Amino acid sequence: MTSLIQSNISPQNLRQSIRNGQFCQPTSGFAPGHIQTNVAILPKQYAFDFLLFCQRNPKPCPLIEVLEPGEFEAKITAPGSDLRTDVPLYRVYTNGILTDETQNIKPLWQDDYVTFLLGCSFSFETALINNGIQLAHIDNCINVSMYITNIPTTPSGAFSGPLVVSMRSIPSELVVRSVQVTSRFPDVHGSPIHIGDPAKIGIKDLSYPDFGDPPLIKPGETPVFWACGVTPQSVAMNSKPSIMITHSPGHMFVTDKKDEDYSIL
Amino acid sequence: MTSLIQSNISPQNLRQSIRNGQFCQPTSGFAPGHIQTNVAILPKQYAFDFLLFCQRNPKPCPLIEVLEPGEFEAKITAPGSDLRTDVPLYRVYTNGILTDETQNIKPLWQDDYVTFLLGCSFSFETALINNGIQLAHIDNCINVSMYITNIPTTPSGAFSGPLVVSMRSIPSELVVRSVQVTSRFPDVHGSPIHIGDPAKIGIKDLSYPDFGDPPLIKPGETPVFWACGVTPQSVAMNSKPSIMITHSPGHMFVTDKKDEDYSIL
Repeated sequence: MTSLIQSNISPQNLRQSIRNGQFCQPTSGFAPGHIQTNVAILPKQYAFDFLLFCQRNPKPCPLIEVLEPGEFEAKITAPGSDLRTDVPLYRVYTNGILTDETQNIKPLWQDDYVTFLLGCSFSFETALINNGIQLAHIDNCINVSMYITNIPTTPSGAFSGPLVVSMRSIPSELVVRSVQVTSRFPDVHGSPIHIGDPAKIGIKDLSYPDFGDPPLIKPGETPVFWACGVTPQSVAMNSKPSIMITHSPGHMFVTDKKDEDYSIL
Repeated sequence: MTSLIQSNISPQNLRQSIRNGQFCQPTSGFAPGHIQTNVAILPKQYAFDFLLFCQRNPKPCPLIEVLEPGEFEAKITAPGSDLRTDVPLYRVYTNGILTDETQNIKPLWQDDYVTFLLGCSFSFETALINNGIQLAHIDNCINVSMYITNIPTTPSGAFSGPLVVSMRSIPSELVVRSVQVTSRFPDVHGSPIHIGDPAKIGIKDLSYPDFGDPPLIKPGETPVFWACGVTPQSVAMNSKPSIMITHSPGHMFVTDKKDEDYSIL
């Protein structure tokens, strides 16, 4: 029934379709202009350290909303939502190992689970495109290229590890504009963390990303690197929590908030 | 010996003088250009809720650094510091009531205390002054006027209460500039929350502030309101934690970081 869902569906109706099991696919392009988020759910015992990790590393871990222990409605950004059913596809990690993929985590829910919603790059990519900056991975329907860098994050409790970045190759004459445009959105990764030589941040060969697809780089384009939302998941996984539930890649939680609600200028 | 301390002292030397008991006065104007912070110290049992309160209310509660439970060195913003001795004057609140004022909290320290450093308005006031915007309370050496508004903060756990704002009256032709200048500093309260009619945010009479001194407003000036760092303290106090230690008003913690380290553009 997926094909019946129009891309310009409202966030509320999209979440309803997901909850009913009518929509189980990547959310990119649906409810355009609305903030979509990464999801990380952890037991309360890990919540303070993980919240502090996000506070210390706001570029890779931009917090959009954190729910109180046991709560599953995102009251601030998506009133009426249910985080146990409103993500198209979840992943369940047990002691850091992927053990399940499911459309409904109600059977797993515990009263002490704390849900973290973190900004994703869809928002600033819309801003780049609106400013005439074409993005090869979107034009070619492939995944953005992501790399593990040699830049350490600031640890918190058991959580530590290197920064993961996403790379977009930008025509050299538009690189300054790409900095300006994304600086307006500090809550969805914000300005780039590096422009130019990949070796400077510990990336040996752009052709072999650690996550996503190899990039398509045209002559005259400069690689520009942004902090990536894969960072908190990879850091959390390294610490091997007893259980951690996340969205499945590309299958995001869609909020009622608009991108412009999160621009600072 | 206070008079021997030069205002252009380095943050490190200023903290050393404070630790030695040679400096016990308000820190405004000392180590200029460096980030000074509000201080709130709470037992671990309150820390997740308070951290989440700050995350949900970033304008009144801009987090500069949060220390892990039991730690008293601000490793990120002031390496070598000791939060038990490096604030010129502390206040101790027991069950929400002021019970002590002291220069050294070593005798009170517990292994589960979590220290929060929150941005203060000194940083954006420097930016306003650098942009030719005179501030009457600074020119006249009085306290800024602060008011309790009818704007609710977003609660977290036991923490809730109204937003407290500070008011600066700005010549009408400089109001736009004051928005631009302070928008660059989202980590130290950022852009104003209101311009103009005080009644719109529940302030009956500007002449009677809830904290600080009455304002001096010249003809042709517009009142401009910013979220105020008194908010988290007043909210925390309302929840009557068993113990809470703060800086004494004006006696801030001085970090090594510069104001410009926290500008976003």
